[in-house]
Amino acid sequence: MLKFEIHHTNQKARRGTLQTAHGSVQTPAFMPVGTVGTVKAMMPESVRDTGAEIILGNTYHLMLRPTAERVASFGGLHKFMNWPGPILTDSGGFQVMSLSGLRKITEDGVTFHSHIDGSKHFLSPERSMEIQHLLDANITMAFDECVKFPATHKVVEKSMERSMRWAQRSKDAFVDRDGYGLFGIVQGGMFEDLRHKSIKALTDIGFDGYAIGGLAVGEGQEIMFSVLDYTACALPDDKPRYLMGVGRPSDIVGAVKRGVDMFDCVMPSRSGRTGQAFTSHGVLNIRNACHIDSHVPLDTECSCPACRHYTRGYLHHLFRAGEILGSMLLTTHNIHFYQNLMKQIRLSIEENRFDEFHASFMQRYKDDRKM
Amino acid sequence: MLKFEIHHTNQKARRGTLQTAHGSVQTPAFMPVGTVGTVKAMMPESVRDTGAEIILGNTYHLMLRPTAERVASFGGLHKFMNWPGPILTDSGGFQVMSLSGLRKITEDGVTFHSHIDGSKHFLSPERSMEIQHLLDANITMAFDECVKFPATHKVVEKSMERSMRWAQRSKDAFVDRDGYGLFGIVQGGMFEDLRHKSIKALTDIGFDGYAIGGLAVGEGQEIMFSVLDYTACALPDDKPRYLMGVGRPSDIVGAVKRGVDMFDCVMPSRSGRTGQAFTSHGVLNIRNACHIDSHVPLDTECSCPACRHYTRGYLHHLFRAGEILGSMLLTTHNIHFYQNLMKQIRLSIEENRFDEFHASFMQRYKDDRKM
Repeated sequence: MLKFEIHHTNQKARRGTLQTAHGSVQTPAFMPVGTVGTVKAMMPESVRDTGAEIILGNTYHLMLRPTAERVASFGGLHKFMNWPGPILTDSGGFQVMSLSGLRKITEDGVTFHSHIDGSKHFLSPERSMEIQHLLDANITMAFDECVKFPATHKVVEKSMERSMRWAQRSKDAFVDRDGYGLFGIVQGGMFEDLRHKSIKALTDIGFDGYAIGGLAVGEGQEIMFSVLDYTACALPDDKPRYLMGVGRPSDIVGAVKRGVDMFDCVMPSRSGRTGQAFTSHGVLNIRNACHIDSHVPLDTECSCPACRHYTRGYLHHLFRAGEILGSMLLTTHNIHFYQNLMKQIRLSIEENRFDEFHASFMQRYKDDRKM
Repeated sequence: MLKFEIHHTNQKARRGTLQTAHGSVQTPAFMPVGTVGTVKAMMPESVRDTGAEIILGNTYHLMLRPTAERVASFGGLHKFMNWPGPILTDSGGFQVMSLSGLRKITEDGVTFHSHIDGSKHFLSPERSMEIQHLLDANITMAFDECVKFPATHKVVEKSMERSMRWAQRSKDAFVDRDGYGLFGIVQGGMFEDLRHKSIKALTDIGFDGYAIGGLAVGEGQEIMFSVLDYTACALPDDKPRYLMGVGRPSDIVGAVKRGVDMFDCVMPSRSGRTGQAFTSHGVLNIRNACHIDSHVPLDTECSCPACRHYTRGYLHHLFRAGEILGSMLLTTHNIHFYQNLMKQIRLSIEENRFDEFHASFMQRYKDDRKM
């Protein structure tokens, strides 16, 4: 059971607090991704220093290495990776379904082969709940099926219906405790009637929160927003809403406008490792030759360690020389940028000026779709 | 001009302080290597937190990328890389001489081709002094010639004599300022008469400190110590003595016993990136399967961030999964181990018990030659 409180709303945008056994999370919130037990290239205390309150772990990666049972023997994922704050884990569903050719899906669950050593594994709603319990996730995600985009109404409907049966099995298998919760995942692709059927099925079961799945799969921002328009507001008002795997800064701002509370994405960390930086003036690639003699920081408006102490010229040098410190500093900056964005979003909701913030941000940040 | 003071001696071991324009250095000191403007996989503030007071930069790497002129345009290496403390730079000589096939040596200097893009460059005593000045090195090293080991007396003698002529040209070209200094480098290979001739030549010129070059080139610890036996104590008492590119913990303890004050080596950082850790019980490789379920830290006697917060099992997992955090934590630990070793060395000299420390350390650490 998780406690969630909405303090304030500004049109559809919501300002809330989610309480977990490992601390509270101010929403709207962005969760950095700690795939395999580490937010890549960052010390956990540095992740916390960016303002991040909750991180995401991947069931698929952790069940293969080091295994959920081993993480449990170390006292759970918080202790194993030295992250004392809240953790959400995905169900493994999305990643297992992506292993085309390496997996077989039945009503019971998914049999698949590890991308690491080819070994055979099985995931089902029950096993996914067990793994997430062993990892000690504060927020457990229901195990669902994902279809490729685009897909026909018939294909999406059949898959959504299976996901709803799996949602019930997830709920039945989940061991509820204080400060821990289970989220259901709305499916239904880009079809309004299926999204509504999915929401009806999930709310009949009852969850601690509701995720919106099956978006950010190549449909584009316009379609994503149109799905959110009829999906987010149809979810229960008193539970957190989580848009999975999203996204770019403008995706997040647009989704908050439509009533979403939580986000996760590999983008700030992954793009940091390749030299892409999010700044208050748009995105830049520090590898570009134009930065070689630049004495200014990545972002003059940013207070992160990378911007306080280093020039673009130095960061450019680190990437050209293939130095690990380059990845460390750009990841830190990008996660800081995302957390600072969430802070500004929360403040503008509290001050009833989220619409102005949204308009001004979308104007400045329209180029982030190029990434 | 650099101020160097010896506070205390315990037999041949010396406890001193070196003053530079960017702060003081307690000796005996170990300098982490920041090859190309970063101590690999570490934030500079974390390097400082290990207890390191001075780091080393490489003229060869920095002159090629980003170039000394560019570093100067950023206000020097301290500002460029956000390391406010003292910096020593090597002369580029050793690394240029190692480019076999890519370089040509004359009395004037060395013409060579960059290992990065094949571009042609020239280094001489005068150019090396100019580069190290542009980098703003607190300690500049004289430009010298290095010969391969083993080499005949005749070859080593001719090379040493050239190095002594280059030492004079280095001294002539060096721009002396308060808090900055120039070190000469004793050559002469494994030949006692040549080492003495080299010391005579250098002390006639007069330097702020004296380095011992041409060791740790494959001669083994026993020969290295025998060279130090007749070399270190023949150097001026009132100037710092620096053993270049050394070494393993037992090399350092043995060299301090013979009167050496300063050291540098890539070993703690490079081995950290490959999973090797120095501990108070010897060396271990965290990639070994035996660590997979270990709940103990790398070193129970260590207070570094890696040992305070993480188990061997977690570190093993990071290396198996190829995660950058593994390199970050093991490098931090190894540099901390080296700095803690230097702290213990300094304390045992102050307390007139260095010999006991040496004996006990050599007993425990005899296996570090295997690395």
